[in-house]
Amino acid sequence: MNTFRPVCWYCGETYEAEPIYTCRRCKGTLDIRYEYKEIFGKAYFEPLSASAGSDIWRFRELLPIWPNRKAVTLGEGGTPLIRTHNILNIANNQSLWLKLESVNPTLAFKDRPLAVAMTAAAQFGLNEVVCASTGNTGVAAAAYAARAGLRCTIYVPEGTPEEKRAAMEQYGAVLHTVKGHYSDAYKVAEEMALERQAFNLTSTYMNPYAVEGNKTVAYELAFQLGKVPDWIIVPIGAGPLLSGIYKGFKEMQLAGFIDKLPRMAGVQAEGCAPIVKAFHNGEAGVQPWSDPVQTIASGIADPLLTYPADGTRTLSVIRESKGIALAIADAELHRYRKLLAEREGVLAELSSVTAVAAAAHMQQTGLLEQNATIVSIVTGHGLKDMSAAINHTKGSVL
Amino acid sequence: MNTFRPVCWYCGETYEAEPIYTCRRCKGTLDIRYEYKEIFGKAYFEPLSASAGSDIWRFRELLPIWPNRKAVTLGEGGTPLIRTHNILNIANNQSLWLKLESVNPTLAFKDRPLAVAMTAAAQFGLNEVVCASTGNTGVAAAAYAARAGLRCTIYVPEGTPEEKRAAMEQYGAVLHTVKGHYSDAYKVAEEMALERQAFNLTSTYMNPYAVEGNKTVAYELAFQLGKVPDWIIVPIGAGPLLSGIYKGFKEMQLAGFIDKLPRMAGVQAEGCAPIVKAFHNGEAGVQPWSDPVQTIASGIADPLLTYPADGTRTLSVIRESKGIALAIADAELHRYRKLLAEREGVLAELSSVTAVAAAAHMQQTGLLEQNATIVSIVTGHGLKDMSAAINHTKGSVL
Ligand SMILES: [Zn+2]
Ligand SMILES: [Zn+2]
Repeated sequence: MNTFRPVCWYCGETYEAEPIYTCRRCKGTLDIRYEYKEIFGKAYFEPLSASAGSDIWRFRELLPIWPNRKAVTLGEGGTPLIRTHNILNIANNQSLWLKLESVNPTLAFKDRPLAVAMTAAAQFGLNEVVCASTGNTGVAAAAYAARAGLRCTIYVPEGTPEEKRAAMEQYGAVLHTVKGHYSDAYKVAEEMALERQAFNLTSTYMNPYAVEGNKTVAYELAFQLGKVPDWIIVPIGAGPLLSGIYKGFKEMQLAGFIDKLPRMAGVQAEGCAPIVKAFHNGEAGVQPWSDPVQTIASGIADPLLTYPADGTRTLSVIRESKGIALAIADAELHRYRKLLAEREGVLAELSSVTAVAAAAHMQQTGLLEQNATIVSIVTGHGLKDMSAAINHTKGSVL
Repeated sequence: MNTFRPVCWYCGETYEAEPIYTCRRCKGTLDIRYEYKEIFGKAYFEPLSASAGSDIWRFRELLPIWPNRKAVTLGEGGTPLIRTHNILNIANNQSLWLKLESVNPTLAFKDRPLAVAMTAAAQFGLNEVVCASTGNTGVAAAAYAARAGLRCTIYVPEGTPEEKRAAMEQYGAVLHTVKGHYSDAYKVAEEMALERQAFNLTSTYMNPYAVEGNKTVAYELAFQLGKVPDWIIVPIGAGPLLSGIYKGFKEMQLAGFIDKLPRMAGVQAEGCAPIVKAFHNGEAGVQPWSDPVQTIASGIADPLLTYPADGTRTLSVIRESKGIALAIADAELHRYRKLLAEREGVLAELSSVTAVAAAAHMQQTGLLEQNATIVSIVTGHGLKDMSAAINHTKGSVL
């Protein structure tokens, strides 16, 4: 019956289910572990039934929520998976699919982790949530807090685009502008969460309950494709989406539903690619990105200034999956955004386009096996950053 | 095996499946009729199976597409249905649900009819589509034409907002600005479609294949709720969405799946309410709206200048369902948009908000029975018209 525990990703120390963000022993980020034998030991796996609905709550036995708790939901998940016809060259019978996380209630994949985190906030009896954000996380946090009836405070760095601020404010969130960059807002949010006993929803690996929401993408993919894709390509900032998806496949393997795992490709923008840099240099750990952040892919432009270990965690997952990390130039993003819209009818946020451009690069460089099935995650909707795309403006915020 | 025919809604004349928009005998708009006995006579109704997927194509036997034709799809449909907690006063155990058509690939309900129409265009061997639009129809037409690889030309009236134009252009559609109002663009699109043998996707009842896509909302609602709602509240311009939904329920009644029909409420903005006016005056037919069009609900602000019969067709469906037509003031739209975002976490396009404000009005005026289940259709996403909402600007285009 949803027996789960936060466990330190690094040293393995276990904790009770409570609002907790780091290991008290080693300060590492946490993961959630379940009593899988109980969940998968049943004769009948509920999510496969037609009556289970199509949102993420069909997988609620695998989410860190106690039984009989009411989900805070806007119907997130159950997103389309469509096959592309015009992105890859027709070669070696490879197929590229797009998982449209853009078709979620607030138009980005963040709705999955935020729905889970907000339900966790309610189950822990908290009245307030906070986060640092300049984009999709803030909009999703504001929407789900409104749905849950919780007070929501968002710390945004200077220079956050007016259109994103306006969206957060429409949902009734309180915004505070923090001088400096994203990492400054991150720090203020962390302090305020502790001071006010508010749940901290900042993305990255900080909130282990939120990260679990990403897992549902893996289950949906396996059911929609009817098999395990050979490659899953994910745009990454710190990378919890990539890790969450891989965790989902590992759970399915544990359950005996599948007998292989996908290889994970993490994609960053050339102008801010700390994980790619460490991958290519064969380094054990990721270092903060010390150069100026220069890319239009603002949703993934995270220099990991104060939490490089998050990058290392993602890097280790990529390596475990025998995957790769690669970076895409801004000019390619404009080109593939246009191509995706004009030839496939999919308008994607600039950060998302990295995953599509990466598929083409991987094909061109011979990384894709014959008959390979590839899925690129379209993380956010292009109608959310139309002005950035139209003006070809440069940004440097998360 | 998907035996269907266009039939005149007015005189009953039947036609072959082909690109046809009006009855050659009486010039009336058309409807599609199916061999229901064949479809529903089967022992097993496919859409109810878990493997049928969740997009509109699970209902393909009930769509005007020949067997074995490939659907032009972006994964439209399968949208969330969520229950509100803070819109209606807690009285008489009434429940209000929102069908989030905003969570579709191009963020509006139009994706359903356009996916069907574009698949029909391909099945009829057409290479080009046209439409008149200033908003959601144009964006959806452009996206699905891109997906199908068809040339798309959109006739937009002067004064169409730059953000909507930009979205259509991103998908590669060719835009032509027409001097005058929407009805002028409507006329040019009609002429050009004939001249170039292009499929005309203009919404209203013009394209009988497109209208069928709206039906899928009804099937989803019945499956998601597990019963027939007492009231379905729909924002209406000409009204094909309202008629399409009612048709879906009538089909389910014919099939023996349900034993009652919902009452349909059609909602317009006070500044442009030709159907409401006819309903309240007990008139047999709808007249064009002769006053200046003055409302922020641009998506439904259709004065029906050159096709008032479309309004009459919708009015007759409302009356058949024992429903009502009502109008909402712009000030209420701003108020309910805010309330919906801040208390339910749903950001809706201003036109969509009419259906939510109407539910509250219907409760206040005693129109809702005890224990009534009400569904309001949220037709478009609020992130699509943020500037209109923020600036509180006035518009007068469809
Ligand atoms: Zn530890
Ligand atoms: Zn006729």
